[in-house]
Amino acid sequence: MPTARYDVLGIGNAIVDVLARTEEDFLLKQGMRKGTMALIDEARAQAIYDAMGPAVEISGGSAANTIVGVASLGSRGAFVGKVKNDGLGRAFSHDIRAAGVTFTTPPAAEGASTGRCYVLVTPDGERTMNTYLGAAQDLCPADIDDNMIAASAITYLEGYLWDPKDAKDAFLKAAKIAHQSGRTVALSLSDAFCVDRWRDEFLQLMRSDTVDLIFANEAELQSLYQTADFDSAIRALRGDIDAAVVTRSEKGCIVVGPDGVEAVAAFPVERVVDTTGAGDLFAAGFLSGLARGADDRTCGRLGALAAAEIIQHLGARPEASLKDLAGENGLAD
Amino acid sequence: MPTARYDVLGIGNAIVDVLARTEEDFLLKQGMRKGTMALIDEARAQAIYDAMGPAVEISGGSAANTIVGVASLGSRGAFVGKVKNDGLGRAFSHDIRAAGVTFTTPPAAEGASTGRCYVLVTPDGERTMNTYLGAAQDLCPADIDDNMIAASAITYLEGYLWDPKDAKDAFLKAAKIAHQSGRTVALSLSDAFCVDRWRDEFLQLMRSDTVDLIFANEAELQSLYQTADFDSAIRALRGDIDAAVVTRSEKGCIVVGPDGVEAVAAFPVERVVDTTGAGDLFAAGFLSGLARGADDRTCGRLGALAAAEIIQHLGARPEASLKDLAGENGLAD
Repeated sequence: MPTARYDVLGIGNAIVDVLARTEEDFLLKQGMRKGTMALIDEARAQAIYDAMGPAVEISGGSAANTIVGVASLGSRGAFVGKVKNDGLGRAFSHDIRAAGVTFTTPPAAEGASTGRCYVLVTPDGERTMNTYLGAAQDLCPADIDDNMIAASAITYLEGYLWDPKDAKDAFLKAAKIAHQSGRTVALSLSDAFCVDRWRDEFLQLMRSDTVDLIFANEAELQSLYQTADFDSAIRALRGDIDAAVVTRSEKGCIVVGPDGVEAVAAFPVERVVDTTGAGDLFAAGFLSGLARGADDRTCGRLGALAAAEIIQHLGARPEASLKDLAGENGLAD
Repeated sequence: MPTARYDVLGIGNAIVDVLARTEEDFLLKQGMRKGTMALIDEARAQAIYDAMGPAVEISGGSAANTIVGVASLGSRGAFVGKVKNDGLGRAFSHDIRAAGVTFTTPPAAEGASTGRCYVLVTPDGERTMNTYLGAAQDLCPADIDDNMIAASAITYLEGYLWDPKDAKDAFLKAAKIAHQSGRTVALSLSDAFCVDRWRDEFLQLMRSDTVDLIFANEAELQSLYQTADFDSAIRALRGDIDAAVVTRSEKGCIVVGPDGVEAVAAFPVERVVDTTGAGDLFAAGFLSGLARGADDRTCGRLGALAAAEIIQHLGARPEASLKDLAGENGLAD
């Protein structure tokens, strides 16, 4: 197997976050389920935008955030996702490249505008998301470059890709090429309601060895196995896949391997400002460690470190160098 | 004189800020003068954007920031400025209206795209700005609604308006209507290099009583009178205008009136994150106090309070309710 050119290549919905602080009652009035991601059409997007407060635009997208985190940790990242050639699309492309990520997916010249996610941050730091997929829906198998996938140690896919119709085929094509090249395929379950929409297909991806490693938080794990009992969900998970990481917010994470289960602590945080991107950045740290052959505990600590940085400010892209932070915490290469 | 419908109406360049953190050497390499605002053309805008790091888009514009601050303080604000009907223009319009400001200037359907300012924030919190005026250049006298000006207790103009060619005429038209209606006209000198470009015209505006109140920081005052001696500059200022406020960063401000000069202290700040908007928000507090008939000291303290909030986070729009902050500091109505 040739040396990898990229440590982690992510495939996901290319999205710009439109973030606004809001009070709890706004979520109630708008009929939003706090802490979750809802898919919305263009009309609903307009209605939410008209009703919400002053906003800030920051590039987002779950797997895109992860790959920016990977680059911030000093690893080599690449991203595949679809924007339109419009203002938000140019901002997305600029931001991910300026972060040191290779991004070569051609933008759409026509059709739906660049996808965006209206992120409403309540005073407790929790985020409630409404996503208009826009151009991200048009990601298709032709956007998958065989050579790039073959040259990536890990191909990382977000579960949200199951929502746009052609992206599934792009996902499966990438997973096949990665395995043919002896590489690792990882999947994030993304969101409890996303799991609810695609439960059987996600389980099938795991049971058919289409993916080698799963990232899930507790709500997603509960949704996957439709049980509130954590231990029985972990047992079911171990029956379905050899490697998984379950994140538990301030309780840290559980790394599940073929030989057992290891609990890794979270990093202490002074004040939670905005939880947007916590799971994305956890995955960044873990995958970055995995790509350099670190043990489970170090991978989990790197994930916890990156997640701790992201929840202490607004937005899901790191403001500090994660590589420097890792060095200060004894987690450098 | 009928009761005012708006406390403060601002006229200025409608701009979206594109903010990125940067190191000092980036400014050197790009030949930028730290702490100042440079006007750039579209090609230079593209070159800077290509070279700079990942960015965040937040609505800006000097007078626009001021009026959003006025609204955040619970006063009634209106804004006049030109955007294009594009993505950034829609974001600007949304953000200012969502902040409670009346904004009715029709967007341009064609021509240059919405103006933007590349704001580079160094680790010391200082900002260096590069502005592509874009659609803001097309503000013209027809955009000035006589009734709105006549209905505003204070019309507030930014010195930057002297850069786009037709905006001067819009400025002069507004000042004339305001005075015909017995209202107050205030001017911010904006930037030391802006003063250098328009020194004689700014002095003429003051000496001809076209403006009643001036806002300047120390660098702008020095540029206006081409002297580094603060006391002699203040003496010259008093000879040219009856009312002025000179801001001095952490040293507070000097309120200059016909009967004398009063020094007002700054608010203590834990950590300066980004000085973008400090002057804009100082003006917001001062003008909000003035509109409700507060004394010089209270106006100065309100200005200092609003400036202190804005420099403790990224961006020039308040993140907290300034009205609540004023209440907590004994500066409510």
